[in-house]
Amino acid sequence: MTPAPLFRASVLTLYPEMFPGPLGHALAGRALGAGLWGLEAVQIRDFALDRHRSVDDTPAGGGPGMVMRADVLARAIDAVAPEGDPRPRLLMTPRGRPLTQARVREIAAGPGAVILCGRFEGVDERIVAARALEEVCVGDVVLSGGEAAALLVLDACVRLIPGVMGKAESGADESFSHGLLEYPQYTRPQLFEGLTIPEVLTCGDHARIARWRRAEAEAATRARRPDLLAPACDKKATERE
Amino acid sequence: MTPAPLFRASVLTLYPEMFPGPLGHALAGRALGAGLWGLEAVQIRDFALDRHRSVDDTPAGGGPGMVMRADVLARAIDAVAPEGDPRPRLLMTPRGRPLTQARVREIAAGPGAVILCGRFEGVDERIVAARALEEVCVGDVVLSGGEAAALLVLDACVRLIPGVMGKAESGADESFSHGLLEYPQYTRPQLFEGLTIPEVLTCGDHARIARWRRAEAEAATRARRPDLLAPACDKKATERE
Repeated sequence: MTPAPLFRASVLTLYPEMFPGPLGHALAGRALGAGLWGLEAVQIRDFALDRHRSVDDTPAGGGPGMVMRADVLARAIDAVAPEGDPRPRLLMTPRGRPLTQARVREIAAGPGAVILCGRFEGVDERIVAARALEEVCVGDVVLSGGEAAALLVLDACVRLIPGVMGKAESGADESFSHGLLEYPQYTRPQLFEGLTIPEVLTCGDHARIARWRRAEAEAATRARRPDLLAPACDKKATERE
Repeated sequence: MTPAPLFRASVLTLYPEMFPGPLGHALAGRALGAGLWGLEAVQIRDFALDRHRSVDDTPAGGGPGMVMRADVLARAIDAVAPEGDPRPRLLMTPRGRPLTQARVREIAAGPGAVILCGRFEGVDERIVAARALEEVCVGDVVLSGGEAAALLVLDACVRLIPGVMGKAESGADESFSHGLLEYPQYTRPQLFEGLTIPEVLTCGDHARIARWRRAEAEAATRARRPDLLAPACDKKATERE
């Protein structure tokens, strides 16, 4: 008998057929096949309370679109993750806090995750407190639903599960891991359309290479992601909450 | 004969089997079936230059992992998007600038997108300038490759293509569209596990509801995403570049 995987993902969605999707291929797919993690995609509609299998209703107070019902979602969550299930419960929503690599690392080191994919105009707010959901977003973009975000979060988690990455894949130097963007990379050929590899990278002086890479990483971060260098600016307001 | 879709996505990847994946279902899938957009997933390996079909090599200057070769990528890009192709060329990379809903709206209004999915330790930096790639990231997390990010970006774009969203889906009030997070939503039942819908939403006074929602949206944004309220902090450093 194969032992149960250490990391179990349960995704609550109206489109279970989207899973494993891309996670069934490449690194995550091989790990899934090897039993290093487990994935169940659960149809929220199966927990509807009426014979029309309704999962949503019009927003209280008016407005466009439909809102997913708290009572239906509660039944689905309770079936998949009964009280005592130690896994974090993520709600993918543009109202959430941006997911960070630090949080991904924590989740990947734990027993798995329950991920609720919002659709339509969102979910009834009461479910968030009632089931202790952690509202997260990935990227400041509006999606047709939380499914694409859930796939992305699981991709980020799965690669960190012990045994998933081989030596070739597991760069110790990783973006965000040390609070900076990655330095630029080059490889053969030495000459590409008149452009050469920076001379420093072929000098053989490892200390000089390390200094150059550090400077490049800092320069890229300053230019593209000053927010990573000045977290104080964000922090104050967050702590206020 | 069906006319060519207005929005054409070309994804360059080592895992074309990941596409359309989730985009073959639900809103995006129906639109794909209806010819409202088009998608081709192109195997980068088909543009390798040797009989081993190598796409990567060790990093110049040392370090873990492998780097995708500029010459192979150039051949793939040139085949899919020859000179004159007006589509933006996105490189999904954690080194990129965060994608915004404003940029998604621009891309969705255009002729499509060419999306290059990085893998391993990244791509040879020289390809970025040589083929005018726009480096973008979604979320501050490290993925096993750019594929999950590409699927997310396309999901965000496709829903905005004219004719894709029906009336039910197209909320005019959208997160990030007015620079604030969305207000909380509620729907029936009126009573859920002892929690009621906020009284204001059932008062019938539309002006009062609008004021309450605005205040809730502002409070949520202040608490969770102060960065959206204080863009000046980011902007200065970006303009410096």
